[in-house]
Amino acid sequence: MTSPPSRRRGAPRTTLDQIARDAGVSISTVSKVLNGRPGVSPTTRALIETRLAKHRYRPRSANQEGAIELVYIPFGSDWLTDVMEGVCSVARELGVGLTVTRWDDHSGAPRDWLEGVARRQPLGVVSLFATPSADDRRRLANRSIPFVIIDPAGDPGPQVTHIGGQNWAGGLAAAGHLLDLGHRRIAVLTGSGQRLCFPARTSGFRAGLEMAGVPYDPELTRAFDFEKEPGDAHVVALLDLPDPPTGFFAQADVVALSVYREAARRGLRIPHDLSVVGYDDLPLAARVAPPLTTVRQPIREIAKAAARLVAGSASAGPPMEFATELVVRQSTAPPRADRSRRDGRPPGR
Amino acid sequence: MTSPPSRRRGAPRTTLDQIARDAGVSISTVSKVLNGRPGVSPTTRALIETRLAKHRYRPRSANQEGAIELVYIPFGSDWLTDVMEGVCSVARELGVGLTVTRWDDHSGAPRDWLEGVARRQPLGVVSLFATPSADDRRRLANRSIPFVIIDPAGDPGPQVTHIGGQNWAGGLAAAGHLLDLGHRRIAVLTGSGQRLCFPARTSGFRAGLEMAGVPYDPELTRAFDFEKEPGDAHVVALLDLPDPPTGFFAQADVVALSVYREAARRGLRIPHDLSVVGYDDLPLAARVAPPLTTVRQPIREIAKAAARLVAGSASAGPPMEFATELVVRQSTAPPRADRSRRDGRPPGR
Repeated sequence: MTSPPSRRRGAPRTTLDQIARDAGVSISTVSKVLNGRPGVSPTTRALIETRLAKHRYRPRSANQEGAIELVYIPFGSDWLTDVMEGVCSVARELGVGLTVTRWDDHSGAPRDWLEGVARRQPLGVVSLFATPSADDRRRLANRSIPFVIIDPAGDPGPQVTHIGGQNWAGGLAAAGHLLDLGHRRIAVLTGSGQRLCFPARTSGFRAGLEMAGVPYDPELTRAFDFEKEPGDAHVVALLDLPDPPTGFFAQADVVALSVYREAARRGLRIPHDLSVVGYDDLPLAARVAPPLTTVRQPIREIAKAAARLVAGSASAGPPMEFATELVVRQSTAPPRADRSRRDGRPPGR
Repeated sequence: MTSPPSRRRGAPRTTLDQIARDAGVSISTVSKVLNGRPGVSPTTRALIETRLAKHRYRPRSANQEGAIELVYIPFGSDWLTDVMEGVCSVARELGVGLTVTRWDDHSGAPRDWLEGVARRQPLGVVSLFATPSADDRRRLANRSIPFVIIDPAGDPGPQVTHIGGQNWAGGLAAAGHLLDLGHRRIAVLTGSGQRLCFPARTSGFRAGLEMAGVPYDPELTRAFDFEKEPGDAHVVALLDLPDPPTGFFAQADVVALSVYREAARRGLRIPHDLSVVGYDDLPLAARVAPPLTTVRQPIREIAKAAARLVAGSASAGPPMEFATELVVRQSTAPPRADRSRRDGRPPGR
């Protein structure tokens, strides 16, 4: 966290003229490519991109104040408030502005996003979940615009710094807590799709079971898209098993509430009849009845770190993971004696 | 929603030179005042402000793309996600950017905010709760920067358009629903402080009672600062009354959850033993167990309207209120016979 990236103040600047001469085109053609304007053939455009990369060209910013750009996609927008708070506080601290853009979904940037970024010349981009295409990543790099992703979908590749919570450790902590209480049949509600955080949490959870000598039952793990379904059907199916789980590890606080709802429908009391551990520690976790035991991700701190990185007040580097922490509230307790038997017989028969 | 505000394209522009001549100062002095730079005496500054107002001066924007500026304060940040979604979608639709700034609290803009706005030259400002001082309002007006407040604290005055949900009607709807179910002793958990939405909701609620011939008992209404305390102590005090309420009208969904928590502590079941109506219809309202009956505010639509107003695609005008709507879920039911007696005797004696 010491030396600022080289594109910051001090380094001698390559001029537009040098790029144009090197590429054998006019300055106005280079300018068109830089600013995302039409009227340049794909071949020339590609040639100019390579020259921009070679010279590490950094345009003089039209925006004298400088701004951090935050990109988000609505998935997981439960995080948006905390991410905004973190990024806003860093923008204030550094005396720079904050620009926000929204992508519709994981399919990539809207067609005109990169052109907009080229015009706006932000100090850097903080992305919440949104992962740019390889092409867009290259164009950002050619313009020396740092890009940091919070919780990327898939592996964003070596050119993009990513930052998030320690997912494997979070899963391990959830397993440890439920095992310590005496649970042996524990269901896992995890996300599907490209976000790597989910397999990392499941794998930490599974390692926790195995370290305790408790077999992992894949039947108890259900992966689904949190955005498209609240998960109630999976909770129903799990509780209807002949040997149902006594505890749930829901890999999002909002998914833990599916367990709350189904428990209420069946007259099961949390934590007396059923234990639930969530993930995230959104504000709602402390507010629900009973308050939810959950794995806290320091979302605001993660957002601050991302903002500092792209704004050049911290050095970029390898992916960073922030420690997660188990917050024990009132949704977890030892399993009821009659439901924690490990003989495999369905209860009540 | 037809004619755009006059500062939009078309009107002849007053130049900096005209302002300077009229005020008898140099162009550079006018420029300093416009851009919030120091080195101008308060008297000269005030003189130039009056000339800017007289000429309806509109600076040529340095930001060719144009941007909407969103200002928020963390209070009620549960709304932020929906407000962002609304403002982002309008920015996209109009092909303009979005800049976000944050104020710490209701005490007004940070010292350098107006200077920043003067530099950034946004198309207009959408404010979530944040109310500028009279001075700042005048400076914004002098620079022809439209400002629209969503749910202002206090009366923001005639120069500022404000926009929100129909609070009085929302309170009335909550009362009507609980009265229809047979409730007669209904507690009200309302906000304190300067935000006008709370007295408007309480007053609509009270009107509903009075129209039904049910006396309003001020003892059952508790006003407190939602931001500073979750309200659990008030719920405890109300349920400990000799003739406790059978229903609650909580003027925020998160406050309704205080009733859920205290009910769980006492072993009271919602809605069988106690009915609860919330306000806002945040995503959590549908997720909690049981799903919360609440007065829905169309926050995203409100934010869109505010963004369109300041970006000039709709005409400004008098304050606008968007219809609220009662969303009936599973937290309300007829009162239990033994708790709905109206003879004033405490139950169970």
